[in-house]
Amino acid sequence: MSNNKKRSNCAVSSGLDIFGDKWTLLIIRDMMNGKSKFNEFEGSPEKIPSNILSSRLKMLQENGIIDKQIYQEKPVRYQYLLLGKGYDLMPILKSISKWSMDWGADVFDPVTNPSEI
Amino acid sequence: MSNNKKRSNCAVSSGLDIFGDKWTLLIIRDMMNGKSKFNEFEGSPEKIPSNILSSRLKMLQENGIIDKQIYQEKPVRYQYLLLGKGYDLMPILKSISKWSMDWGADVFDPVTNPSEI
Repeated sequence: MSNNKKRSNCAVSSGLDIFGDKWTLLIIRDMMNGKSKFNEFEGSPEKIPSNILSSRLKMLQENGIIDKQIYQEKPVRYQYLLLGKGYDLMPILKSISKWSMDWGADVFDPVTNPSEI
Repeated sequence: MSNNKKRSNCAVSSGLDIFGDKWTLLIIRDMMNGKSKFNEFEGSPEKIPSNILSSRLKMLQENGIIDKQIYQEKPVRYQYLLLGKGYDLMPILKSISKWSMDWGADVFDPVTNPSEI
C-alpha cells in the first residue's frame, strides 16, 4: 500500500504492497473506462471516500502508475491519466472480472460494459 | 472483505469485496504452493499477523473458497484446503505476478519458485 514497505520479494506480495486494497484497482478500472477527474472517480457506484481517493491517487503517482496533469489554468484543475505501468494492470482487472463472472451472481464485466460504471 | 457488503455489481468490485486486501491472496498463494496449516501460513516471509490470518481463513471458508478439515483427532488439528473457487484464483495470482515481474525489481514468481516461500 502507500507506506512503500516491501514485505517480501514475492511478485504477488510486491503487487499487493501497491494495490492490495478494496479501492485502488477500482480507480484503475475507472481510468481504463475513460474517467480522469477527481469528481468522476467519486461518482462511481462504489462511492469511494474522498480522503481515500486522494491518498490512492498520490500513491499511484508516486509509483509511476498514473500521471497528474493540469487541464485548466484558472482555476487550476487536474486530471489523472494512466501511464504504461498502469495500462499494464488490465490483465489483472480482466482476471478478477472473469473470476467474479464465473463464481458470482448478478455481476457485470466493467471491461465490456463501461457505461454501467 | 469479510463484512460481505457488496459495493456494486461490477465484477472487479465484487472480487475486491472478497480478496481486496494485502493478505488474502498471499494465503491463497501459500495454499497453491502446498501449505495447508495455520503455522505454515504464519511462517511465510510476509509474517501475517495471526488475528488477520484467522479472520481471513474464516472469511474464505464462508465464501466457499477454502475448506477447513480435521487432520488430527487428539488434539484436534485443522488444515485448510482450496476448493474449486479457490483454485480458480490462480489466473489472478499469475497476472499480479507477471505485472510485478515486468515492472518491479528483485521479485520472483512464487508460481514457478514455490520453494522460496
